[in-house]
Amino acid sequence: MQTLHNALRSTLRYLRVCAKWLVLAALVGCLTGPLGAAFGLALSWANATRDVQGWLLYLLPVGGLVIVFLYRHFDPQGGGSTNQVFAAVRERKVLTLRTAPLIFFSTVTTHLLGGSSGREGAALLLGGSVSGQFGRLLRLNRHDCRLMTMCGMAGAFSAIFGTPLAATVFTIEVVNVGSMQYAALLPCLVSALLGVWISGQLGVAPTAFTLGATAELNPITLAQVLVLGILLAGLSIVFCELLHITPKLYTKFLPNPYLRVAVGGLLIIALTKLLGTTDYNGAGSAVIAAAMVGQALPWAFALKMLFTALTLGAGYKGGEIVPIFFTGATFGCAVAPLLGLPAPLGAALGMVALFCGCTNSPLASICLGLEVFGGQCLPLFALVCAVSYMLSSYFSLYHEQHFLHSKL
Amino acid sequence: MQTLHNALRSTLRYLRVCAKWLVLAALVGCLTGPLGAAFGLALSWANATRDVQGWLLYLLPVGGLVIVFLYRHFDPQGGGSTNQVFAAVRERKVLTLRTAPLIFFSTVTTHLLGGSSGREGAALLLGGSVSGQFGRLLRLNRHDCRLMTMCGMAGAFSAIFGTPLAATVFTIEVVNVGSMQYAALLPCLVSALLGVWISGQLGVAPTAFTLGATAELNPITLAQVLVLGILLAGLSIVFCELLHITPKLYTKFLPNPYLRVAVGGLLIIALTKLLGTTDYNGAGSAVIAAAMVGQALPWAFALKMLFTALTLGAGYKGGEIVPIFFTGATFGCAVAPLLGLPAPLGAALGMVALFCGCTNSPLASICLGLEVFGGQCLPLFALVCAVSYMLSSYFSLYHEQHFLHSKL
Repeated sequence: MQTLHNALRSTLRYLRVCAKWLVLAALVGCLTGPLGAAFGLALSWANATRDVQGWLLYLLPVGGLVIVFLYRHFDPQGGGSTNQVFAAVRERKVLTLRTAPLIFFSTVTTHLLGGSSGREGAALLLGGSVSGQFGRLLRLNRHDCRLMTMCGMAGAFSAIFGTPLAATVFTIEVVNVGSMQYAALLPCLVSALLGVWISGQLGVAPTAFTLGATAELNPITLAQVLVLGILLAGLSIVFCELLHITPKLYTKFLPNPYLRVAVGGLLIIALTKLLGTTDYNGAGSAVIAAAMVGQALPWAFALKMLFTALTLGAGYKGGEIVPIFFTGATFGCAVAPLLGLPAPLGAALGMVALFCGCTNSPLASICLGLEVFGGQCLPLFALVCAVSYMLSSYFSLYHEQHFLHSKL
Repeated sequence: MQTLHNALRSTLRYLRVCAKWLVLAALVGCLTGPLGAAFGLALSWANATRDVQGWLLYLLPVGGLVIVFLYRHFDPQGGGSTNQVFAAVRERKVLTLRTAPLIFFSTVTTHLLGGSSGREGAALLLGGSVSGQFGRLLRLNRHDCRLMTMCGMAGAFSAIFGTPLAATVFTIEVVNVGSMQYAALLPCLVSALLGVWISGQLGVAPTAFTLGATAELNPITLAQVLVLGILLAGLSIVFCELLHITPKLYTKFLPNPYLRVAVGGLLIIALTKLLGTTDYNGAGSAVIAAAMVGQALPWAFALKMLFTALTLGAGYKGGEIVPIFFTGATFGCAVAPLLGLPAPLGAALGMVALFCGCTNSPLASICLGLEVFGGQCLPLFALVCAVSYMLSSYFSLYHEQHFLHSKL
């Protein structure tokens, strides 16, 4: 009788915790959905405006000075890097509330004025900060605030990209490679699903492409995809190292952060004028879309890496993921035909596998491929991601990412 | 110069290990592909033959006696349970070679004579044993033999179900819940992809259904799926407990294993005759297919659980997964309309979520949903799996499955 009573009590306690998290996660979804949507719409506006008003590019150094000023005065410790949110999750610290407006403003400014950056790192900071602080407001303990931060990351990522499953799996997979934060699975997914639904209602279109070409599953295709994966693993190492080395070089030659960001802005202007194209400024969605139908310049990937490293290294803000999509898609598009694969398929595989190599999150990458390109050629996406994961060794975009097990 | 030399050497060592595993995994795929195909074809033959030759059912007790005799004489320690292969992976032990013919023969016999069981547990043992022994033949160390066993599991699972990604993720996810064996990702995937390609060439059709109905992604659908997930989590607890309690009851009342298996066989015969249908004997693929188009008896799920517990508890062999598919699909099909969801969608969600609740492998379950039903309604599959995972608590089909973290 006593045993039955205890079992019933522990069952009820278990169910109460589940119910608590369903409610909290739904609230976070309702919070980060509109926020992510606002951020996504602001970035679309920024990119569209810059396309029309070419002169905005000349203001890039001025925008950079403002960004540096804001961070030095309001968040000197944080600095608006994606690593911040990883550290917050690992060390159970809550991101400050001012993280959110700072990253929102500085990322939109970077895109509006033609810096080359992404939006996902910014979305993670945005969602993580707001929902972590919301947890604190509800007087949750550190452990619960950590889970709130994760829900916010998934919700905002999902709202802005339209990929709820990839957002969820990324959040539970990326911080400690090899340890799945399954306790966060349901809460993050609920936030992500509500986030994407709300952002869809608010007019944010999900990132989605029709796979322009497919390939049959046979040993020859597998071998071709394997080689493509090896090349993309190598490229991911180059990408990560370039993004780590550039800020060090900047700091070495230009110790003053204001001078650094201004020079960075001038370099972007000079390069843009030299090349006579704005393909490499901002998010570059048009170039990614062109790669998906098989059109890309063979050197586009290298230029995008350069633009992104110069932009982010100088102190401009935004994520690294959309530049990775650009780099991977254009590289894959250019290289695939040499391996006997259709260029559009190469672009799709390249985009996903470079993401995987840089972030070491193979399952999130496979989910991304699935949600962006549909279920076709899933085995090929899985293979290219697995190869890219294994051969990218312990290089990572995020120095706050820890590897719990050997990769081999 | 010395540093560069060292870096080059460690890079080459890294690449050599990668290359070694690509070759080994491909060999395992070539080994387990035909084996899995032979097993799949034998089981198809067994089920088809029994459908025509109804009198075979009366031989079930005799078949049981043979199975018990074989296991008592040739593998008294092992016993042909799926737990064996989990223990082999965790403790870096290699399964004996005789595990393979024993499980092959006894599973086919169980299906041919009308016992209710699956094939996936058997496939894992089959693939794990042969490839682990192959590793030993190549004089690999214990660590490497463990990875060979995992490749074999993925290869055979994939060959028989036609779901390479689910097979891979299941293998790296299931043994220690919360720790992803990423080092096994690429090798397992290569084995699984080659396995499924070979078995396809040999005429094994992949498990695939067209999703008969879809639902729009909105908060109402999400709430409906959430409730369905809660019910399926409860059902998974009942399923697991039933499968654990039945052998204990059998042993308590019938300590002699020969008597036990014979009585089990007689019970199956009696129940079959009492119900006047062979729906619950063997794999029951026709019933699963009917549920996928919205047709299932409301009590079918309960009878399948009973048949399976009586069959496996008595000492007959085979996996638990196909009975789980049957139970989940018929339950989902019957319950979904009460929640306002289309019955075929309920069947699909039920099949995948019961698998998730019983095996505690949410990502493999999502992959399974994807590979069996295509990419449609992916967010709903993810949600139902996440709910089923969280609410099934620490109940598990496998007592050799360990939980590394708290589920909450």
